[in-house]
Amino acid sequence: MSTVAAYAAPAAKAPLERTTIERREVGEHDVLIDIRFAGICHSDIHQAREGWGEAIFPMVPGHEIAGVVSEVGPGVTRFAVGDRVGVGCMVDSCRECDNCRAGREQYCAAGMTGTYNAVGRDGEPTYGGYAQGIVVDENYVLRIPDGLSLDVAAPLLCAGITTYSPLKRWGAGPGSRVAVVGMGGLGHMAVKIAHALGAEVTVLSQSLRKREDGLRLGADHYRATSDPKTFEELRGSFDLMVSTVSAPLDLDAYLSLLGTEGTLVNVGAPEEPVSLNLFSLIGGGRSLAGSQIGGIAETQEMLDFCAAHGIGAEIELIAAAEINEAYERVLDSDVRYRFVIDTATI
Amino acid sequence: MSTVAAYAAPAAKAPLERTTIERREVGEHDVLIDIRFAGICHSDIHQAREGWGEAIFPMVPGHEIAGVVSEVGPGVTRFAVGDRVGVGCMVDSCRECDNCRAGREQYCAAGMTGTYNAVGRDGEPTYGGYAQGIVVDENYVLRIPDGLSLDVAAPLLCAGITTYSPLKRWGAGPGSRVAVVGMGGLGHMAVKIAHALGAEVTVLSQSLRKREDGLRLGADHYRATSDPKTFEELRGSFDLMVSTVSAPLDLDAYLSLLGTEGTLVNVGAPEEPVSLNLFSLIGGGRSLAGSQIGGIAETQEMLDFCAAHGIGAEIELIAAAEINEAYERVLDSDVRYRFVIDTATI
Repeated sequence: MSTVAAYAAPAAKAPLERTTIERREVGEHDVLIDIRFAGICHSDIHQAREGWGEAIFPMVPGHEIAGVVSEVGPGVTRFAVGDRVGVGCMVDSCRECDNCRAGREQYCAAGMTGTYNAVGRDGEPTYGGYAQGIVVDENYVLRIPDGLSLDVAAPLLCAGITTYSPLKRWGAGPGSRVAVVGMGGLGHMAVKIAHALGAEVTVLSQSLRKREDGLRLGADHYRATSDPKTFEELRGSFDLMVSTVSAPLDLDAYLSLLGTEGTLVNVGAPEEPVSLNLFSLIGGGRSLAGSQIGGIAETQEMLDFCAAHGIGAEIELIAAAEINEAYERVLDSDVRYRFVIDTATI
Repeated sequence: MSTVAAYAAPAAKAPLERTTIERREVGEHDVLIDIRFAGICHSDIHQAREGWGEAIFPMVPGHEIAGVVSEVGPGVTRFAVGDRVGVGCMVDSCRECDNCRAGREQYCAAGMTGTYNAVGRDGEPTYGGYAQGIVVDENYVLRIPDGLSLDVAAPLLCAGITTYSPLKRWGAGPGSRVAVVGMGGLGHMAVKIAHALGAEVTVLSQSLRKREDGLRLGADHYRATSDPKTFEELRGSFDLMVSTVSAPLDLDAYLSLLGTEGTLVNVGAPEEPVSLNLFSLIGGGRSLAGSQIGGIAETQEMLDFCAAHGIGAEIELIAAAEINEAYERVLDSDVRYRFVIDTATI
């Protein structure tokens, strides 16, 4: 056991505050990571405030973790002290089901073990990345390539893989027309990755407020969804749309922007049920899909891809004491485009 | 011009009655078809009764047409007098848009010309298959292989292609687990085709009433959706589900039956909007899709496939005078599994 400094929510909706937590002994296949940076994901706020149902407290959020290996268990083969590494949304899974064996650990039949707000396979609660250290089985640790700074790499572990996975699965690339719905933490990564994959990228955002950023990050076009002309003029325009927003959308209107056999993939979603007319899918042979982060091997592939293309997140680096204020700013969509905590300040 | 006997609805919701209609001159690229059989599709009833909005009357329904070529225009190259042929849901399209050029005429950007209840590119209303003859451009005429009887082939032109197309597109075949939702005109074709493709086929029907038929036609399993155990026990069981029903379904419950990255394709659908929770898609990376008939080349491929596998529709052959009664029986789901009109009785 080791004691590490952390920021935790002591109870639902309570402000996060400095505390200490215990990390387990470094086991046979474990890696102890000296956390340097942790991204703030919108879902951290959902969970800390029990927006997604009952949660486990105290809660140390954080599943966009970047750091350096400071100790390895005797059975570890893939990492050594000093390696630059990351941890994303999961720290374990059953490893035996079809999905785990196929590298889709995020869809583990027995349920993946979340990096925080979960109970590990050892029966102990998991605590996330708003902390100075974490112990993780090496099979759930990613290598951060040398070309990527740790601060801008941290958000790739959730925002990066969440957008990379559907872009790859549905064939974003040269000749394909991709729309990114929402220009936030996930959306700005989708723009960068889709552009690097060679697609023609259009951002669909409520307003044109972030247009300059969108074009700078790789979008070819930037349109406001508050303008009805956008829906008229872009009818049938996209092969793939990635919706990163959690506000309810008029799905029939968005589906009308897809070309024949196009797909609208949701990586964000409202908690409430949504409504659509199935003829919006039948006409045009369209699909409405969902996607949840990505598998471990795919996450490594994404990190390697991002390093090769010089892609990191656009971040605002903050001190731990600013976390609660940052949460409010995330809720106000007032961040360009990801807060990252410098964990040395905890 | 030629005058042919037909059965028509003189007005919305009026019973169909015998009449005569004019068919256009056989043009350069036209084929005159001596219609022998016409299937009754549920959508005939929707349209004749204006369930899908304003329609054109008098209406001669029928888009599952099988017959024999009796005259060809001078420019016709693909057919000769005496050829056994079929016509499905469309008799024309723009031929110039990306979809037409890609063999997806059903998604023609300018709108395909429906076999009936439509206005042709010549400005004249189209009349369907409940008639003794029809003139169709050869590019929208299908060849019915010798091995297929015309009566059981007729329903393939809609029910066959509507189910074949999504089964092929989403990879039904050896090793894949396919569910067919609904055991009616479309559903029984989906069972036969999915079985012939090599998939493991499960029928999900409201009751077990048609179980013997389902198993005889190629289903491996047959489960009642009225039994809550069905949803518990089949959780995560299917790679592909084809819903042929137009009643509103509990989509979240049906989606839960899909395995990872599985797809629920709707070829039938209710007119009203449906509701679902997008997390039913995000968890498992699932898709909800739609599909509308198929292109001309694909329809020919389907007919050749069905002939090679000895697949026709299960039909009840009726005389024209029985059409109105047959409509009532279709609405009562009292048909096994497709009514086909012997057009010699018109």
